[in-house]
Amino acid sequence: MNEFEIIQHYFADESKVCKDNVALGIGDDAAIVDVPDDALLVMSMDTLVEGIHFPVETKPEDVAYKALAVNISDMAAMAAEPKWITLSLSLPEHNPEWLGAFSQSLKHQLSRYSISLIGGDLCRAPLSVTIQIHGLVAKHQVAGSLALTRSGANPGDSIYVSGELGAAAFALHSLLNETDLHASPEDKTRLYRPEPRLELGLALRELASSCIDISDGLISDLGHILKASRVGARVQLDQIPYAKSLMSLEMNLAQQLALTGGDDYELCFTLPAALDDRKISVLQQHFAITKIGEIIDSNRCVMVDAAGEEINLTGQGYWHF
Amino acid sequence: MNEFEIIQHYFADESKVCKDNVALGIGDDAAIVDVPDDALLVMSMDTLVEGIHFPVETKPEDVAYKALAVNISDMAAMAAEPKWITLSLSLPEHNPEWLGAFSQSLKHQLSRYSISLIGGDLCRAPLSVTIQIHGLVAKHQVAGSLALTRSGANPGDSIYVSGELGAAAFALHSLLNETDLHASPEDKTRLYRPEPRLELGLALRELASSCIDISDGLISDLGHILKASRVGARVQLDQIPYAKSLMSLEMNLAQQLALTGGDDYELCFTLPAALDDRKISVLQQHFAITKIGEIIDSNRCVMVDAAGEEINLTGQGYWHF
Repeated sequence: MNEFEIIQHYFADESKVCKDNVALGIGDDAAIVDVPDDALLVMSMDTLVEGIHFPVETKPEDVAYKALAVNISDMAAMAAEPKWITLSLSLPEHNPEWLGAFSQSLKHQLSRYSISLIGGDLCRAPLSVTIQIHGLVAKHQVAGSLALTRSGANPGDSIYVSGELGAAAFALHSLLNETDLHASPEDKTRLYRPEPRLELGLALRELASSCIDISDGLISDLGHILKASRVGARVQLDQIPYAKSLMSLEMNLAQQLALTGGDDYELCFTLPAALDDRKISVLQQHFAITKIGEIIDSNRCVMVDAAGEEINLTGQGYWHF
Repeated sequence: MNEFEIIQHYFADESKVCKDNVALGIGDDAAIVDVPDDALLVMSMDTLVEGIHFPVETKPEDVAYKALAVNISDMAAMAAEPKWITLSLSLPEHNPEWLGAFSQSLKHQLSRYSISLIGGDLCRAPLSVTIQIHGLVAKHQVAGSLALTRSGANPGDSIYVSGELGAAAFALHSLLNETDLHASPEDKTRLYRPEPRLELGLALRELASSCIDISDGLISDLGHILKASRVGARVQLDQIPYAKSLMSLEMNLAQQLALTGGDDYELCFTLPAALDDRKISVLQQHFAITKIGEIIDSNRCVMVDAAGEEINLTGQGYWHF
């Protein structure tokens, strides 16, 4: 099969139905979509390279799952409704088994979120998957002061994270290091199949003052909010929601995994001090979220223990460079 | 420098000015743009991998130029006005000299076309450049019968190509093969710095019945038009506009390069039989275009010589797979 036949056979059937404002799908020089008049277009692009972003010989269905999940996670962090993706797939060879499993998994996830695959590129090169995702936000949302970006946090805002932290990092740690510490199947699922917090992100639309998804580690990603918002933070270490499997680890390692480990794809967000407590209660009824600290008028991120004493951590987030 | 510092230092200054409907540029989880109500969004994605799509040790300024040019060429083929790009750059190392030359060249070209870089991704991996380009077409254009896609050609339409064919393929041929045939500097420029035919594409908006850019070779790309339009073609070989440097080559090689060589990024398009001759004259006054044949009611692409005799060619376009 050549490039065009592979696209047709494995990927193009998704685009045959011109749904979801798709005027032209796979198979021309470009795709065409109709963005509703009352919406702004939100776009994000993420590349996953074998051996860098996922271990060599990761199952193709997991590669497809994760490549899409990390992009949906960016939409969640912007409170945008994902609509369309394009896919650039670099493959070392035409492996029908791999392509079949990859495309099936991708289409399954796309269908789950009602997202359309509308175009992309395919070439013979070392395994690498680039997905660009496109979502929508209402125009009035961005024009207002509560657009869900990284830059809206203010002193006094509460800092929250969703879910639990450190499971994916623990799974990667036990995979990469010779260790007696074995991650659980649940930890591995978090590494290979992170669950983007899309519903939470959408629910935060009119509530949160800032938001980011935790791809590089809590300290690093919270740091992006602080820098963009020109504020500091006081984080209560005893309030961090550690993943269950970290409980059996040495405290230092557990802290490092939960605070600086990437790949959890939970959301870190801030809620304004003035926000109605009842709205927070409703959020807490629907989503697993934990308050871990507050935004302060400072240029530092201060970690404190249960007694309020400052703790000096030297850990760094996972840097791609 | 880490990932974020590199993006900030080399790329982010482009996005500081919120121009061209950019509501949010580089530096958040996603970018946000405002698509005008009277326009549809046209998007295309192309990946260039070192050693596959450009020779190893191609100059960084040429890599940037070509990565953008091939994407603009897709917009030209759709008669879309390019507006915004995202960039995923995989780099084996942080090389300031390489990054400086790459980003300067990219920004220079972006500025020339008034395109904004609004987001993307950066990681440490073998050299690969993915650009997604976003353009606009008027809504009435696509709703009408003359939307510039691959599928609108009809029997009786004239087939045209822009410029000359084969120069880029000749440059690649003389680079890859031990040969006494040396491509000229102009041929090499066509290979490393193809000129996307954007003005021509935009001028074809209301005139052409179909269009494609020649990235894989004339026969292959015309073949896409024929397949999408469910028609055939009669191509007059003596009318093909050969690149000048091919004149000194053996006829067989020249034909092969001009008909099946990729990378020229000229446009191949069809004009309806009913189109006013004066409109064709105006096109010809402004652009170098050549009629090479006509669409026929068939499922074949027939090549004929000056006497109208059919010629059997066995050449194939350049397949990525």
